[in-house]
Amino acid sequence: MRPSARHLDQMRSVSIETGVMKHAEGSCLIKMGDTHVLCSASIEDKAPSFLKNTGQGWVTAEYGMLPRATNTRNRREAAAGKQSGRTQEIQRLIGRALRAGVDRRALGERQIVIDCDVLQADGGTRCAAITGGWVALRLAVNKLIKAGIVTSDPILDHVVAVSCGIYAGQPVLDLDYAEDSNAGTDANFILTGGARLIEVQMSAEGASFSRVDMGQLMDLAELGCTELVAAQKLALV
Amino acid sequence: MRPSARHLDQMRSVSIETGVMKHAEGSCLIKMGDTHVLCSASIEDKAPSFLKNTGQGWVTAEYGMLPRATNTRNRREAAAGKQSGRTQEIQRLIGRALRAGVDRRALGERQIVIDCDVLQADGGTRCAAITGGWVALRLAVNKLIKAGIVTSDPILDHVVAVSCGIYAGQPVLDLDYAEDSNAGTDANFILTGGARLIEVQMSAEGASFSRVDMGQLMDLAELGCTELVAAQKLALV
Amino acid sequence: MRPSARHLDQMRSVSIETGVMKHAEGSCLIKMGDTHVLCSASIEDKAPSFLKNTGQGWVTAEYGMLPRATNTRNRREAAAGKQSGRTQEIQRLIGRALRAGVDRRALGERQIVIDCDVLQADGGTRCAAITGGWVALRLAVNKLIKAGIVTSDPILDHVVAVSCGIYAGQPVLDLDYAEDSNAGTDANFILTGGARLIEVQMSAEGASFSRVDMGQLMDLAELGCTELVAAQKLALV
Amino acid sequence: MRPSARHLDQMRSVSIETGVMKHAEGSCLIKMGDTHVLCSASIEDKAPSFLKNTGQGWVTAEYGMLPRATNTRNRREAAAGKQSGRTQEIQRLIGRALRAGVDRRALGERQIVIDCDVLQADGGTRCAAITGGWVALRLAVNKLIKAGIVTSDPILDHVVAVSCGIYAGQPVLDLDYAEDSNAGTDANFILTGGARLIEVQMSAEGASFSRVDMGQLMDLAELGCTELVAAQKLALV
Amino acid sequence: MRPSARHLDQMRSVSIETGVMKHAEGSCLIKMGDTHVLCSASIEDKAPSFLKNTGQGWVTAEYGMLPRATNTRNRREAAAGKQSGRTQEIQRLIGRALRAGVDRRALGERQIVIDCDVLQADGGTRCAAITGGWVALRLAVNKLIKAGIVTSDPILDHVVAVSCGIYAGQPVLDLDYAEDSNAGTDANFILTGGARLIEVQMSAEGASFSRVDMGQLMDLAELGCTELVAAQKLALV
Amino acid sequence: MRPSARHLDQMRSVSIETGVMKHAEGSCLIKMGDTHVLCSASIEDKAPSFLKNTGQGWVTAEYGMLPRATNTRNRREAAAGKQSGRTQEIQRLIGRALRAGVDRRALGERQIVIDCDVLQADGGTRCAAITGGWVALRLAVNKLIKAGIVTSDPILDHVVAVSCGIYAGQPVLDLDYAEDSNAGTDANFILTGGARLIEVQMSAEGASFSRVDMGQLMDLAELGCTELVAAQKLALV
Repeated sequence: MRPSARHLDQMRSVSIETGVMKHAEGSCLIKMGDTHVLCSASIEDKAPSFLKNTGQGWVTAEYGMLPRATNTRNRREAAAGKQSGRTQEIQRLIGRALRAGVDRRALGERQIVIDCDVLQADGGTRCAAITGGWVALRLAVNKLIKAGIVTSDPILDHVVAVSCGIYAGQPVLDLDYAEDSNAGTDANFILTGGARLIEVQMSAEGASFSRVDMGQLMDLAELGCTELVAAQKLALV
Repeated sequence: MRPSARHLDQMRSVSIETGVMKHAEGSCLIKMGDTHVLCSASIEDKAPSFLKNTGQGWVTAEYGMLPRATNTRNRREAAAGKQSGRTQEIQRLIGRALRAGVDRRALGERQIVIDCDVLQADGGTRCAAITGGWVALRLAVNKLIKAGIVTSDPILDHVVAVSCGIYAGQPVLDLDYAEDSNAGTDANFILTGGARLIEVQMSAEGASFSRVDMGQLMDLAELGCTELVAAQKLALV
Repeated sequence: MRPSARHLDQMRSVSIETGVMKHAEGSCLIKMGDTHVLCSASIEDKAPSFLKNTGQGWVTAEYGMLPRATNTRNRREAAAGKQSGRTQEIQRLIGRALRAGVDRRALGERQIVIDCDVLQADGGTRCAAITGGWVALRLAVNKLIKAGIVTSDPILDHVVAVSCGIYAGQPVLDLDYAEDSNAGTDANFILTGGARLIEVQMSAEGASFSRVDMGQLMDLAELGCTELVAAQKLALV
Repeated sequence: MRPSARHLDQMRSVSIETGVMKHAEGSCLIKMGDTHVLCSASIEDKAPSFLKNTGQGWVTAEYGMLPRATNTRNRREAAAGKQSGRTQEIQRLIGRALRAGVDRRALGERQIVIDCDVLQADGGTRCAAITGGWVALRLAVNKLIKAGIVTSDPILDHVVAVSCGIYAGQPVLDLDYAEDSNAGTDANFILTGGARLIEVQMSAEGASFSRVDMGQLMDLAELGCTELVAAQKLALV
Repeated sequence: MRPSARHLDQMRSVSIETGVMKHAEGSCLIKMGDTHVLCSASIEDKAPSFLKNTGQGWVTAEYGMLPRATNTRNRREAAAGKQSGRTQEIQRLIGRALRAGVDRRALGERQIVIDCDVLQADGGTRCAAITGGWVALRLAVNKLIKAGIVTSDPILDHVVAVSCGIYAGQPVLDLDYAEDSNAGTDANFILTGGARLIEVQMSAEGASFSRVDMGQLMDLAELGCTELVAAQKLALV
Repeated sequence: MRPSARHLDQMRSVSIETGVMKHAEGSCLIKMGDTHVLCSASIEDKAPSFLKNTGQGWVTAEYGMLPRATNTRNRREAAAGKQSGRTQEIQRLIGRALRAGVDRRALGERQIVIDCDVLQADGGTRCAAITGGWVALRLAVNKLIKAGIVTSDPILDHVVAVSCGIYAGQPVLDLDYAEDSNAGTDANFILTGGARLIEVQMSAEGASFSRVDMGQLMDLAELGCTELVAAQKLALV
């Protein structure tokens, strides 16, 4: 029934390749099916000014999409002279999600910038960016620990994200673009390795939804996140 | 226990005054406690170009906040030369929420722009903007119907929004600024008059949350929304 | 003969309500007929950098208009990404006018920002903004004096503004939009409480004008300003 | 008493050289003492869209200043990414002044753009721009008439501008920079060849002023404008 | 002597992998050592407006660099709100170079946009972008030919680019970043498959250079370009 | 054969008038035929921040063109809100060229900004800007030396620039606009007084070119530069 012939609760194949950008303190290329996102983590010695003398650090994210990552070419945001509302919304989400998994006091007064650039898009780019961004973050923090700059691990838990939705009347896991553009309800779930919730976003695209729908999508999300945590662990071995 | 001494499930007092802007096709001033938002609806004869010859209309929203709506003065966005990521995220949310309550085919190829300007802020401005914006929209659509321009009512149901959160370990309804800035989890619920869900946004600010927490906040939201729908009805009498 | 049936030398009814924005150090809502402007004064501890170590303070102003303050919706300047030439010209005028009534040395090295936001427009918004802005400024300065931060009153005199023009060949006082958009000559007068001049702007819109015309408009302006000073005093009681 | 040792009612020497830009339909270099402004008129076949099918034309102006026209270098506005409020205010003034001297119906549905670029500044640049801009406009219109494109002369009268002010307590004509930066009151008068008024702008810089002051400055302005009209005529011989 | 231990006339290893972006009409990932550039070609049905009704098409290019493509993170241009002068200069060069190898009349009234995004930078990114961009262009044109949309091949010849420079007093081929940042003279050569010149840019960085130096760098460039043409051919097999 | 009837190796008449801007530390108006560029040098006490505590200074340039310098009016860049790619490319070139002729250590930690504004354009504006900009720079440095602020002359040699091209199949010197817009190959050469090369830019506009062509254009450039150095010397007497 799904365009990809996947089961309702079947994720796309996930792969995470680390060390793909030689200059970055942490990096990976995450592929969720045909959605490919290049993630890097850059350590900066200074925290943002609003944290000066607080002893706390910061994690932030920026998101971009190559003009031809999609089916028709999108205007390059640098040429347009500004990031779209969608881009800003997504990068704020990524940053917020990753910060929720970090003890900012243990990180100390420094900043880690996560860049997530979509090389190819087929739905679920923000979720892939969070899952991959966490791996880049983990690698960069490992460097800080190894160098003795940070002594207590500031990473509290894994952070992963997956989209679910109601497609053709059925709850499905990990929407691809064909599904996403036709889904009645669209949801993004961000969870910790311990399956606690960090962020939930559900939105009716057309029909409204019920609490029962919410529960079913939530069930699928928990399933998917388990798989994503496993993929993160595998990549970091 | 709450800074305002309200019960956990107690909303702030709500008032909606209509007809406050003489030029607009629909307008109201909504007050949720000390949060005051001026909402107007402007009918435009043309739909956006991507809807040309589809027979469908559009509802969109813009959001702004007066520089001194808040405790310390914020830079005026027009002077800064751009809308912040937060502003864009909020106005996208308002537009999406209101569209979900509209039959865009019945509206016909025209656009209604909802402007929501926060005159005074004390938490929950995006929710007030949605609840008030719907009233402005309703009034503008009434004009279209009265004038015979639209024959079948394009408004499907009421749309209301309320924030809930976990404050000092307890689930509370309708956060004011004192609570919002200290809440562990912060959620916005957008519902229809029939208590169906249009959008749910839950976000851990600090600690992660559980499915049980989700359910409790959801319960409070349903309570609050009943009251908001009643306030909308009262304003429209 | 006037669209509003007013006498040639008759102002619109004026009301000034103070204390309308709970966060601002000073605020008022001024209504000149259907022109409604919300004015706030925000005290900032630092003067602009060009005044550093001069012992002098600054008063500046920003002006905005809600998109649907007018008969047809105007594009939101924050969304357009810049303030129009008209907006900048008006806010420069407001700031210059209010500064002319202030002893900047007595104010000390701090800045007061006056925000004037037009909620509803029916001609004469810049004049209403100046008259209302002065009230907000007066209230904020009162706070500084009461708190002992400023010891000698930096306010030299009232500052008020009124528009006049030649409409249908006759000099008229306090143009509303219907008159303003058809006036042959359009003038703005800014006066002190003592009827001294701070700024005069007269502009031929169509036909040129004579020194006799100037004198007649000046006479009307003096009349109107007496009334505006009285309204300011009443609001501050 | 004046820094330049001029009499109170003495203009700086004025020269207007025409035909200085080979590509423009009209051009001149106007020098008022050390203030040098290069003015060009460009005819465009289309009127702005708001005049479509009205049979009326438009005259507009743009103003700029070379970065080192002044004593210390100013940031180039093209590099800064926007025109300052001052620049916009001046170019709006120039356009308004020149339009007041044109029968836009006789001009027909076309636009003439006047560019005024200050090569060297010593006070009074906006007045020089208006006086010189009118010469460029006159030359361009002459071309239209000569070519038979326009049959009835759209130029109604000369337009000239001069600044006056109260310097060291005395009313003086044609302020240079040394005076302008110290004047108590600063005024710009725009007149027709027939000494009718097009625009008056008077502004207290420091002390307020009286109606008597207004009259004295007005007297000086009339004197100066006679001289400027003569200079325009001489340049056009 | 070279930091990479290469011979003076030795290129870095070159690889070009095609078909790496599923949505684009043509794409490749070109690697010149550690410089990796992702190139795509997007066919648009319309030529730019200045070519309307000329029967000619257009090829243009945009260039970007991921923030962490370099040793220290660069600010994202989309976030900064504009493309740097360097970026604009490079993308103008790429477009000009590729257009020089195209018969724009044979292409017909359509546009091909080449996007070159640097995933990892180690010197010579603009040259890699040209060499790789040509492959993407070739693939897109092949599609047009195969579909019968274009009947006569608009591609005139291969276009390749290589940098040379004087490093430590010696002429060297294909500068990497370590060399580029210390080179006395830096040159970029763009050649056709037939070793004709399309563009030469030589710049003294420090010491000036002589005609003899020019000749030596030119010799190296011809050598390198032969190798690059071979790599293009290999990729297209 | 040339539109201007010049010999193939004949420059346009060159004149350089110094001291044309009274406020600038150095200035000249350079005319190469109908191409007129006003150049000024402004000394700033501070070097850019990236040179702080290095003991080295900086020379930079900005370039602009009056809207009606050309045959049809160009949009004013300040009004457009940004400098075009072409403008940025040219001003980067001017700055780079002039810096190549300066001992930045001898200059000390200060900056000289060269502004080059094209009053009238007829081809070759960037070359005229470099040749004239150097004269302005020379004059400003003379002031520094005279004032004892700089003790060892930081100017290493003259810097001049000339364009050459292949027009109607023939190599010609100093292209004017009529030639430039039809040239098959277009080149800019920047040389020192000692005929050493600082920058070479050759670009095929249409047909590609050969090494023989390069040599011929180079020969012409050397000829032209001798004449330009003589003109600089004459202007500085």
